[in-house]
Amino acid sequence: MPSSDFSPREYAARLAATRGAMSDSGIETLLVSDPSNMAWLTGYDGWSFYVPQMVIVPQHGSPLWWGRTQDKPGARQTTWLSPDDLFDWPEEHVQHSMHHPVDHLADLLRARGWTAGLGVEMDNYYYSAASHRILQQAFGTEALSDATGLVNWQRAIKSDVEIAMMRKAGLLTAHMHEVLRDAFREGLPKHELVAQVQAAGISGLPGLAGDYPAIVPIAPSGREASASHITWNDRPLTTGEATYFEISGCFRRYHCPASRSLFLGTPPSNIRRAETAVLTAIEDTLAAARPGVTCEEVASCVYDSFARAGYVKGNRTGYPIGLSYPPDWGERTMSLRPGDRTVLQENMTFHLMPGLWTPDWGLAITESFVVKPDGGEPLADIPRELVVKAA
Amino acid sequence: MPSSDFSPREYAARLAATRGAMSDSGIETLLVSDPSNMAWLTGYDGWSFYVPQMVIVPQHGSPLWWGRTQDKPGARQTTWLSPDDLFDWPEEHVQHSMHHPVDHLADLLRARGWTAGLGVEMDNYYYSAASHRILQQAFGTEALSDATGLVNWQRAIKSDVEIAMMRKAGLLTAHMHEVLRDAFREGLPKHELVAQVQAAGISGLPGLAGDYPAIVPIAPSGREASASHITWNDRPLTTGEATYFEISGCFRRYHCPASRSLFLGTPPSNIRRAETAVLTAIEDTLAAARPGVTCEEVASCVYDSFARAGYVKGNRTGYPIGLSYPPDWGERTMSLRPGDRTVLQENMTFHLMPGLWTPDWGLAITESFVVKPDGGEPLADIPRELVVKAA
Repeated sequence: MPSSDFSPREYAARLAATRGAMSDSGIETLLVSDPSNMAWLTGYDGWSFYVPQMVIVPQHGSPLWWGRTQDKPGARQTTWLSPDDLFDWPEEHVQHSMHHPVDHLADLLRARGWTAGLGVEMDNYYYSAASHRILQQAFGTEALSDATGLVNWQRAIKSDVEIAMMRKAGLLTAHMHEVLRDAFREGLPKHELVAQVQAAGISGLPGLAGDYPAIVPIAPSGREASASHITWNDRPLTTGEATYFEISGCFRRYHCPASRSLFLGTPPSNIRRAETAVLTAIEDTLAAARPGVTCEEVASCVYDSFARAGYVKGNRTGYPIGLSYPPDWGERTMSLRPGDRTVLQENMTFHLMPGLWTPDWGLAITESFVVKPDGGEPLADIPRELVVKAA
Repeated sequence: MPSSDFSPREYAARLAATRGAMSDSGIETLLVSDPSNMAWLTGYDGWSFYVPQMVIVPQHGSPLWWGRTQDKPGARQTTWLSPDDLFDWPEEHVQHSMHHPVDHLADLLRARGWTAGLGVEMDNYYYSAASHRILQQAFGTEALSDATGLVNWQRAIKSDVEIAMMRKAGLLTAHMHEVLRDAFREGLPKHELVAQVQAAGISGLPGLAGDYPAIVPIAPSGREASASHITWNDRPLTTGEATYFEISGCFRRYHCPASRSLFLGTPPSNIRRAETAVLTAIEDTLAAARPGVTCEEVASCVYDSFARAGYVKGNRTGYPIGLSYPPDWGERTMSLRPGDRTVLQENMTFHLMPGLWTPDWGLAITESFVVKPDGGEPLADIPRELVVKAA
């Protein structure tokens, strides 16, 4: 059974929304392989996504869980599904070059008569080209349609219970940043700092335990920070270098990412100028992020603030967040960027990411927020300014 | 430039071995999307695998890195490739429903004249069914062949430098288990224990910094442990329950996983009986794991020991390990199981996994080892016995 945060009522609502979207897309049976979607739909939790597994949603009747024999007890422990609706493929098929678990899936679908109108998540980490080929050979290309993002879009507007969980994740994120600010000092090897910050996120706060985030700390310093996804190494923190930490607390798989930048010594004027542009961008964006405004309108607050400071930002500046599994805590639906005319609605949640990367340094100060009638409301309370420590 | 552990000589050897395997498979150009394979071939490191990226290996000439604009500086910082051989797809394509980075890849391949004899890793997390469809449409199905595992197999026999890194990972793993044994006590909430163990793996030992392992701690207790991939929660450790921890230290992406089981109070006789069967299985397997013996012969040591104790083990009992990225630290080539007649060679490395899962409890005591002339040599030095603490 899932945790108490996921009520039977919420379960029914999520299933109904998904079935509505299936109808709109002409999908009779949806094969969900994204672990975030599987968990959102049924509660299923476990580090088992490195082998094929799915939640199968027919238009009528109970959804099924399908996965490895070893993981079936986990499905029984964590989902709303009845034990009769859990199906397992034989252990002998694990990572075997001569047979594949999806052969077993094809048999299961055939036995149920679900051989046409199948929706599959074609652009997902956990539905491989090989899996798709097996289903194509079993049922024909016409039987399959691309349902990438179908469930993800249903996740966009959070329920109040989900917002509450994201705020708890935000308390964990704020706690991690507090530990980071306190520990950050000249000469401390980066990995020791990372160990402390990560432990703070998991040991959490009284009554508030942390889960593993979908992305490990991204924490580059100095020129390393010109690359936006360098994790960490054992180099000591050095005077004259900017470091940024992109981290997230995680509460029952819900995230609240936030980046802060830190500097040892006296920050040069170009970094201070970038900081001002970023802080203004955040304030302008939060003020603008009301229901009815489009993603690109919100994003323009960031691009405009950067342009005024003489910077060009070439990448998107935010994406939706919520429940997630590695390797990404984004929901992969809309983006805060030019051309995205998706209309914001109340209780959508975003990670606003006004980062700047130059060849010599990178600066990232970011906020996770929820869309409310008066604008974007931060989901965590963390001082935004560049953290400056004397050398 | 990669770390000092990855010499130009080793780089050349890895590339040559891969090209040999490409020749054998009739592949002219290999598209490598598995981040572990990308790192093993070129040194590339970064948490950027949640968007499409590849190392492209032509039969002649330099390999190319292809990825997101934001990540190109990371490729420059971490690989042996020349800056001229780094190619980036436009930021605008990030997670966009109307265009896809692989369209850009098709243009790059076309510009180079690499339009046939393309090998792709069809059964990998980071090569999606959507990516494959785009390449099929661009070059035709005949132009593409399945190269899943081609590079993984080249990784099977480790160089001495790699073995040294795995032994360092083993020191980290042993340190994590020491912290675990010391901290394990009645009433301690599980997540607090996990935070300590994980921090120990990253803060590491003097002169030895930890990286993030490809799998987070798997640490179920009591009935939870009937499911083999449950991570953790905030429930206090309780007398009468067995807990197992499957964890790994990670040194420069190299792993050395090891599980141990712990018990609060007096273990019942069935758990003691299982422990004996597991310990015997490990001893017998290590003695048998010499060059020239097959995977299934080695595996039979485990199945035989379990059968003598009255247990049936239905799943495989080990897999190769080494350099890895989430979501799996296994190499996905051979397995220690019936039917696998791969012949062991010196310096192959395995995670031997003689775990037992019953409906009421799970017991896992596992070892990572390297194949040497006299048998399997453990890569970490950790007491194997069930850890028993008074309530």
